[in-house]
Amino acid sequence: MKLLLINPNISESVTELIRLEAQRSALPGTEVHAQTAEFGVAYIETRAEAVIGAHAVLQSAACHASDMDAVIVAAYGDPGLCALKELLDIPVIGLTEASVSEAHLYGGRFSLVGISKRIGVWYQEVIRAYGFHDRMASYRGLNASFSDVGRVQDERRDMLLDLCLECVEKDGADSIILSGAPLAGLARDVADRIPVPLIDGVGSAMRAAQSLVALGGIHRHTGSYARPPRKGNRGLSTELQRLFHPH
Amino acid sequence: MKLLLINPNISESVTELIRLEAQRSALPGTEVHAQTAEFGVAYIETRAEAVIGAHAVLQSAACHASDMDAVIVAAYGDPGLCALKELLDIPVIGLTEASVSEAHLYGGRFSLVGISKRIGVWYQEVIRAYGFHDRMASYRGLNASFSDVGRVQDERRDMLLDLCLECVEKDGADSIILSGAPLAGLARDVADRIPVPLIDGVGSAMRAAQSLVALGGIHRHTGSYARPPRKGNRGLSTELQRLFHPH
Amino acid sequence: MKLLLINPNISESVTELIRLEAQRSALPGTEVHAQTAEFGVAYIETRAEAVIGAHAVLQSAACHASDMDAVIVAAYGDPGLCALKELLDIPVIGLTEASVSEAHLYGGRFSLVGISKRIGVWYQEVIRAYGFHDRMASYRGLNASFSDVGRVQDERRDMLLDLCLECVEKDGADSIILSGAPLAGLARDVADRIPVPLIDGVGSAMRAAQSLVALGGIHRHTGSYARPPRKGNRGLSTELQRLFHPH
Amino acid sequence: MKLLLINPNISESVTELIRLEAQRSALPGTEVHAQTAEFGVAYIETRAEAVIGAHAVLQSAACHASDMDAVIVAAYGDPGLCALKELLDIPVIGLTEASVSEAHLYGGRFSLVGISKRIGVWYQEVIRAYGFHDRMASYRGLNASFSDVGRVQDERRDMLLDLCLECVEKDGADSIILSGAPLAGLARDVADRIPVPLIDGVGSAMRAAQSLVALGGIHRHTGSYARPPRKGNRGLSTELQRLFHPH
Amino acid sequence: MKLLLINPNISESVTELIRLEAQRSALPGTEVHAQTAEFGVAYIETRAEAVIGAHAVLQSAACHASDMDAVIVAAYGDPGLCALKELLDIPVIGLTEASVSEAHLYGGRFSLVGISKRIGVWYQEVIRAYGFHDRMASYRGLNASFSDVGRVQDERRDMLLDLCLECVEKDGADSIILSGAPLAGLARDVADRIPVPLIDGVGSAMRAAQSLVALGGIHRHTGSYARPPRKGNRGLSTELQRLFHPH
Amino acid sequence: MKLLLINPNISESVTELIRLEAQRSALPGTEVHAQTAEFGVAYIETRAEAVIGAHAVLQSAACHASDMDAVIVAAYGDPGLCALKELLDIPVIGLTEASVSEAHLYGGRFSLVGISKRIGVWYQEVIRAYGFHDRMASYRGLNASFSDVGRVQDERRDMLLDLCLECVEKDGADSIILSGAPLAGLARDVADRIPVPLIDGVGSAMRAAQSLVALGGIHRHTGSYARPPRKGNRGLSTELQRLFHPH
Repeated sequence: MKLLLINPNISESVTELIRLEAQRSALPGTEVHAQTAEFGVAYIETRAEAVIGAHAVLQSAACHASDMDAVIVAAYGDPGLCALKELLDIPVIGLTEASVSEAHLYGGRFSLVGISKRIGVWYQEVIRAYGFHDRMASYRGLNASFSDVGRVQDERRDMLLDLCLECVEKDGADSIILSGAPLAGLARDVADRIPVPLIDGVGSAMRAAQSLVALGGIHRHTGSYARPPRKGNRGLSTELQRLFHPH
Repeated sequence: MKLLLINPNISESVTELIRLEAQRSALPGTEVHAQTAEFGVAYIETRAEAVIGAHAVLQSAACHASDMDAVIVAAYGDPGLCALKELLDIPVIGLTEASVSEAHLYGGRFSLVGISKRIGVWYQEVIRAYGFHDRMASYRGLNASFSDVGRVQDERRDMLLDLCLECVEKDGADSIILSGAPLAGLARDVADRIPVPLIDGVGSAMRAAQSLVALGGIHRHTGSYARPPRKGNRGLSTELQRLFHPH
Repeated sequence: MKLLLINPNISESVTELIRLEAQRSALPGTEVHAQTAEFGVAYIETRAEAVIGAHAVLQSAACHASDMDAVIVAAYGDPGLCALKELLDIPVIGLTEASVSEAHLYGGRFSLVGISKRIGVWYQEVIRAYGFHDRMASYRGLNASFSDVGRVQDERRDMLLDLCLECVEKDGADSIILSGAPLAGLARDVADRIPVPLIDGVGSAMRAAQSLVALGGIHRHTGSYARPPRKGNRGLSTELQRLFHPH
Repeated sequence: MKLLLINPNISESVTELIRLEAQRSALPGTEVHAQTAEFGVAYIETRAEAVIGAHAVLQSAACHASDMDAVIVAAYGDPGLCALKELLDIPVIGLTEASVSEAHLYGGRFSLVGISKRIGVWYQEVIRAYGFHDRMASYRGLNASFSDVGRVQDERRDMLLDLCLECVEKDGADSIILSGAPLAGLARDVADRIPVPLIDGVGSAMRAAQSLVALGGIHRHTGSYARPPRKGNRGLSTELQRLFHPH
Repeated sequence: MKLLLINPNISESVTELIRLEAQRSALPGTEVHAQTAEFGVAYIETRAEAVIGAHAVLQSAACHASDMDAVIVAAYGDPGLCALKELLDIPVIGLTEASVSEAHLYGGRFSLVGISKRIGVWYQEVIRAYGFHDRMASYRGLNASFSDVGRVQDERRDMLLDLCLECVEKDGADSIILSGAPLAGLARDVADRIPVPLIDGVGSAMRAAQSLVALGGIHRHTGSYARPPRKGNRGLSTELQRLFHPH
Repeated sequence: MKLLLINPNISESVTELIRLEAQRSALPGTEVHAQTAEFGVAYIETRAEAVIGAHAVLQSAACHASDMDAVIVAAYGDPGLCALKELLDIPVIGLTEASVSEAHLYGGRFSLVGISKRIGVWYQEVIRAYGFHDRMASYRGLNASFSDVGRVQDERRDMLLDLCLECVEKDGADSIILSGAPLAGLARDVADRIPVPLIDGVGSAMRAAQSLVALGGIHRHTGSYARPPRKGNRGLSTELQRLFHPH
């Protein structure tokens, strides 16, 4: 089984964190590929940055997904995820999508802990669009700078753990999602310091993708996720054109 | 990995359907065990029957879950599921819980197709309690009798497929859940006749349970899913007493 | 008029509190009967305990409701209530159900004050299932131990009153429900110390039950609360069998 | 116990229907008074008419409620109800408020059947304001004229019953509210022709009011239903001035 | 273009504030008329006062709107607004209605800052009725007295600004509505002291009304906002009778 | 006043429709500019196409908005709208955003009529994200082909009007939005054939944009719509880089 993880951002260090956690979450026989976006920003925390990231995800999938068994959009707010589902007939999974799904399996309400206060609004809008807002207890984000987004989980580990404990004690969280690809892998290290299940988006997405691959391709011949009707286009990259109109 | 599927009903023929689909959904090395409820009714379609089924699930888990790696509550409305999550520190998964989670991963809205009109209200109440109602497009249920609940998927196959197509065409379903343990396995046989993804609750629950087992035990030391506080009790079976108060 | 109050728990002291408040709320000519559960726990505060309590309620009704005019499920989260409504053609009322209904008649939003923080989650899930969550301002629960659940209203009276005042001042409550059968009767004693209406679940349920009895039996020949269809069963108590299939 | 029913409309024939049903729903010792609005329209079915009716209710209460034990606002959309609750320290109950509360006690979802299609929108807006919309299955209204609003229940009885049956069969209603004061009393006559509980708003309001009177006066010293702060006013009737500022 | 602003209260000083801000928001050629209610209270902050104000709005429109191009109901909770829309075929706009609409155009979530804590509940009920509650971040109101409602924006300016800043910092507001006609005009003066857009209800309503006038009259021949059906009435002012039944 | 309308699609014929309706909706002194997307598809009806359109909107604004007073995103689902609001300190308005806002000012519930069934899902997701779903009565879309999206309003006019009437009669619409830029201008021609207000997205957006321009620039120094924090980027067009980081 070959899985492609697309980092919608340009941070190679975060791509590396994603790749490592993906490999640790891989079943025997799963081959992990990770791609950094061709274009974009260091990390997405606003709606404007998410627009760029969404396009970059489509472009990356157009270039690299052709012989894959599943694709993971590896930024927490799932930029371009729903779009890409329309275009591929293999499983396409996002970190937010998968981690709220895993939180659902633990039962009760979940909180999110992330790397900035600003980024939380985007996450919440995505979770509301998925219809999961009634299950969400709170978002708490770092209110502190960091030198490199690829090292924020090391630099600010104690602060992040304190935020997790506040979610449990003040907000009634039954599980906590460490949200944001830059936090990939942290849950493994600190799970025993938090008294409720701790969820890693990359791990969740890997579990979801590997599970669905076993079912074979996804055939959507109708409905709102069927392939977009063929129509005129202009200015798309050659790869994107082929992704929209494969034959 | 050892998985226990508990049929909260007394229908051995349905237990057999569940076991077969579970085995087909098992990863290499997964051992499938299936138990029929000690007490209960032929199949649950009302709130009253669900109360009995919930107790039977706890009793069955108390007797048979001790050396398991995960437990699946194998009736579609998930009787006793949230209760059992509080009592075990291994993954406990329900068919409704898992299948709406899988529908979420396909994107958009899902419909349910079930074996009676009456049973649909219970399903909808459970899905609402999970906070998934905004993702649900419709429920459509058989309005026809059947001789044996274990054979309804054969006796009424064409009618069930017609209901699926109505969900797609009239209700805008992006995926369809064949809901009810008596329909276990049907999705495999008829997937190519329905133009959107078709979801089998037993298969979904197997995928969810096997994914989570890889993470190791679930430790909930606080929150609303922590083990109930120790307190006086009377008239519980010996096994249930031990389930509530393990040491 | 003969009313049966079923305590789904095994605490005789709480049954006595319930009986006393029920008698004070009885109209002339109303005969009050109270039954303690045959099996169960000291008091329900989790989903697991509620499963046992729900079965105990059905069993108790099966044994004692045959010549009654109405039944009250006398624990605040209403275990087994919706199930029992399906099985009896007399009014069946729960404490939560009745007290939120009474709060609705006072107008605006209500808060709940209860005996533990943990128990609040169960209450909120039940109130959400009733569709009343938009009317609920908050839950505040004791964060203190007590020697006997039957005496918590005396031991922790001042703390409970402080919680009520916080609901008014901080949460904007227009009325307050003293939630939990162990608090039965407290509202009468302290109403003048709280500046908004104070609601007693047992009193509310008595008022609701006595009102509906005047209308005669409840005949549900169809709909989701009609009697469950006759079908095979196994291992139920003789009384429960008769409750499910009366003739 | 003295109860005042205020008809917010000018139809004496409807006041008479209300009075009759109220008397049939009265407990021994309850004295029923009914007042027709001093000003207003024949029957309210729009937001504009409801504004006039609301003022008329306050005026009528100002004139006639002084020695009453409870007041019932006897039009189905409850014009002026929440306003009047702020001004009186006795129970003030509305037909919609009470009938949805009674439907809640029957469990599941309710439908409304009314005397015109137009009037249904107003009813639904009120039910949504009460937070009960998730419990509402449907509204169905007469699409036919009638010679006198006080006789519509006789002239169009068969049509009304057909609408009730459609609510059960097509909309999944677990109970039905005959909505509109002009339908007062009809439920008694036709209950045996409808397979789910049938609710009469006047009867519901009588039951609610009589229940609450037993609790004594309602003291709201704070919260959003406390008496409006004293402030300057102009052009109010003498009675209304006294209602706003009693001493 | 001639616009009528109706102050549903009797405070001439507030009418003057409204008139001034309306004139500053007027396009070239727009003629502004402002009317104080014939009857009512100093300022509305409760449901009871809103009932009176709603009737006063209809009466004022009946007397003064005949040659107008649009009417603005100039109290923040929009008393009588929906009623008046049914009765006139010109744009009828309310301050709450228009300011939440403008907040929507700024994006994200808005907070309200008002002149008393009590008044906030009414505002929130109205915003919920409009279906805007998911966009509302918070309400914060003065907890301080003032000598004259027409001068509260001067007397309590610093407190009001502090409340605005709390909405931004603690509640996540993306814009702030200065709510209450007594705050008309304040936004202009203090906009540069608040880091998110500041909304003035009178200005918003002027912009909305002037925009819609350009479209010509509003013809609603059916639907729930069509003119109420002609029917018997009694005790209405001559002007109101003509407003309900124009010919 | 200079307004820029960006067509996120490549259809010049639709840009022309947009420009014409914008000019008819312009106040004296308003200068209308319209730009067709540099890249994209003929018309957006899926999530995948919307991703491309959103990027194209940012690119077009980056190139052409520098001396404008407001920007209108002129496709009905508002691709890139929220993103662009973060990047510009002038009003940025979308057709969906503005037309639901105008429908709100008419009162009650609105329906949408559009050019394909498929496109309706995207519209509904956007309206839900805005929190307006409780105000939406229905979507009805053409189930018929057309030769050119720029002429669909002529080719299928009668069908479109029939859909409008169905919205009124079957779905209870109080107003109707002709949704989709290809329908720009149609409302003017057919308003007198529909018995409720008919809304044109381009006209609504023009009214909203012109109203807000009068207020001056929009200064968002904080909140979720403030400019994205400065951070590393790669592969963006020179214009987009400047849009993200202006100085």
